[in-house]
Amino acid sequence: MYSLTVCDHIMIAHSFHGEEFGPAQRLHGATYAVEAEFRAAKLDHMQLLVDIALAKTELRRVLETVDYSNLDEQPALAGVNTTTEYMAFHIHGLLSAACRDGRLGAGGRAVASLKLLLRESPSAWASYEGPIA
Amino acid sequence: MYSLTVCDHIMIAHSFHGEEFGPAQRLHGATYAVEAEFRAAKLDHMQLLVDIALAKTELRRVLETVDYSNLDEQPALAGVNTTTEYMAFHIHGLLSAACRDGRLGAGGRAVASLKLLLRESPSAWASYEGPIA
Amino acid sequence: MYSLTVCDHIMIAHSFHGEEFGPAQRLHGATYAVEAEFRAAKLDHMQLLVDIALAKTELRRVLETVDYSNLDEQPALAGVNTTTEYMAFHIHGLLSAACRDGRLGAGGRAVASLKLLLRESPSAWASYEGPIA
Amino acid sequence: MYSLTVCDHIMIAHSFHGEEFGPAQRLHGATYAVEAEFRAAKLDHMQLLVDIALAKTELRRVLETVDYSNLDEQPALAGVNTTTEYMAFHIHGLLSAACRDGRLGAGGRAVASLKLLLRESPSAWASYEGPIA
Amino acid sequence: MYSLTVCDHIMIAHSFHGEEFGPAQRLHGATYAVEAEFRAAKLDHMQLLVDIALAKTELRRVLETVDYSNLDEQPALAGVNTTTEYMAFHIHGLLSAACRDGRLGAGGRAVASLKLLLRESPSAWASYEGPIA
Amino acid sequence: MYSLTVCDHIMIAHSFHGEEFGPAQRLHGATYAVEAEFRAAKLDHMQLLVDIALAKTELRRVLETVDYSNLDEQPALAGVNTTTEYMAFHIHGLLSAACRDGRLGAGGRAVASLKLLLRESPSAWASYEGPIA
Repeated sequence: MYSLTVCDHIMIAHSFHGEEFGPAQRLHGATYAVEAEFRAAKLDHMQLLVDIALAKTELRRVLETVDYSNLDEQPALAGVNTTTEYMAFHIHGLLSAACRDGRLGAGGRAVASLKLLLRESPSAWASYEGPIA
Repeated sequence: MYSLTVCDHIMIAHSFHGEEFGPAQRLHGATYAVEAEFRAAKLDHMQLLVDIALAKTELRRVLETVDYSNLDEQPALAGVNTTTEYMAFHIHGLLSAACRDGRLGAGGRAVASLKLLLRESPSAWASYEGPIA
Repeated sequence: MYSLTVCDHIMIAHSFHGEEFGPAQRLHGATYAVEAEFRAAKLDHMQLLVDIALAKTELRRVLETVDYSNLDEQPALAGVNTTTEYMAFHIHGLLSAACRDGRLGAGGRAVASLKLLLRESPSAWASYEGPIA
Repeated sequence: MYSLTVCDHIMIAHSFHGEEFGPAQRLHGATYAVEAEFRAAKLDHMQLLVDIALAKTELRRVLETVDYSNLDEQPALAGVNTTTEYMAFHIHGLLSAACRDGRLGAGGRAVASLKLLLRESPSAWASYEGPIA
Repeated sequence: MYSLTVCDHIMIAHSFHGEEFGPAQRLHGATYAVEAEFRAAKLDHMQLLVDIALAKTELRRVLETVDYSNLDEQPALAGVNTTTEYMAFHIHGLLSAACRDGRLGAGGRAVASLKLLLRESPSAWASYEGPIA
Repeated sequence: MYSLTVCDHIMIAHSFHGEEFGPAQRLHGATYAVEAEFRAAKLDHMQLLVDIALAKTELRRVLETVDYSNLDEQPALAGVNTTTEYMAFHIHGLLSAACRDGRLGAGGRAVASLKLLLRESPSAWASYEGPIA
């Protein structure tokens, strides 16, 4: 199994609902360092899994929908606790759609699974992995 | 599949038995940077896999049993070569028990598998992964 | 010259005023990975610059004043653009006061200069360095 | 499942064939930070997966075949686009052979799977994982 | 003293002249992870040292002159051993000029000193620091 | 001013004397990731500050005197609290001597100052910097 990973980051504000969250119930924020890992059983005839430049472009396009925003006011995230693990799932959905729609070329359509990992601090991170279908 | 990882570190002394270990047969030591990765197929209704604060607290509690100690004198490790891979297994056992016993809440009980990764230096690390049952 | 550095992090929300800031004029947020570097020409008789545990405790105490908050609503930061370089200066002031007041022991009072470095993302960081007096 | 990872790096020149590669069609180069991860279900009676010193020695021996070279002129890589994902596969083949041939001892022969991860920059990396057989 | 650092990277081929260089006399290559640190005694009224977005844009513009190239064929580097320390100096010259010419705004002109640090591998890096004048 | 930095690491055991050290009074250990930074105002005619391969060899030779040992039993460190800041000073002395003695070539003798930085964990490190004379 092959993998190719590209990185970017976003800077967002949000707050959590529920006593379990303690001080994180207050409006605060995070830098999420984002790693998108594409996995496939084969490379194409150019020896590429997906084109790195294209992967970075599409990851950026997807991240633009939430970058420099207050997640509490995003309609697509209304009423949801935007935990790091949830945001990994949310971005996975957007980037999976980009693969399926051909925005990452033939390589993107051949991706077997996609993993989104978000680092919220030097000592905590979360991920979601699943097929692109 | 979701994952959530929290980090901590311990500073221990130990020595190894067996010619294969060369200079590491002498009493020496290590900083182990510890990464505990919890995996689960679902998040709870709060969008949490496990509570990060609770995960850090319980990881610390488990690490206290070996932190700032000479592993050669730990009864629980008597007669064992405390290699990095073995210590990953050892700490996995302790943190798995914490999950099973409910000390990480309902989320901890729903963990499908747990991976402990210990970095012994910038150029070598080891891990053990398995179910918490 | 000796140095000792301890690390922590904060997660804050804020917004900037001025067209130069582009999308960062919107409410967003950041994880600041914080590195506090103490510098001194000599160590004490215990071979310590400052006690690491005490340094981490006092850095945390200082960071609690802004952690998990919206900087736009902090009275101490009213009307100021809380750029990474400014926040390094702000935290430098608070930790310098802790040194002067003896909260880091005799070692803290002997610190010649203090540098606060804040990493806002994997590709950008800022610092402020100056004497503690 | 246990894992043990050792690291090294190589510095190579190469060029790519195909319009998709844009400026990377020109002769350029890369530092590949190489991580070799050995996986096995059991440790030996010494609590070792593979000997770290031996693993580093054999990884270095394998990397010597390409280190400080122009991959475009390597007979073993003739006519192939030496993408990061392909080079992970290529080095996987060489290190797998070292395991099978006993150059990593009995532990090496017991390795269930081997993953080679090559970091080409702070924001992109690729890997190949498969059995050593 | 304040500092602001922004990062980027380049991927180049080159070779060295002189027996001291051993295998590095052969054509090989490197990824240079580049950190540009701007230093100034004061921030502007916006609390900025230099605009991060502008700093990243100008650093990229400067790096484009050597990225994805064979340094042995660059007229500006003819007959020079392009060691990491020399390349730090070379890029320092280009980015200093950008500051002086106003391409980084008023903040860029107020920079007291500029440090260029180039990481060639996980275990070696070099820098050049000097005034922009 | 130019700098060149090379890295290595050591794994040692030790204990501290004094109530201030709390649990670190017990025999424990550390991995010290060691960074040796050489500084000089000029490069030689080969564009080298010091030869990287030679610098790594001599740093390793110096570190061999303490690697895989119990610092409490080192005659050269008898009765001294081997704090991270003190060990940075100690190794600085050994590597400075190597520079003065010509073991790093003419470049080593031209070094203006040398900084030794030792990382004891992901969240704490210390350094000593001074001239080699």
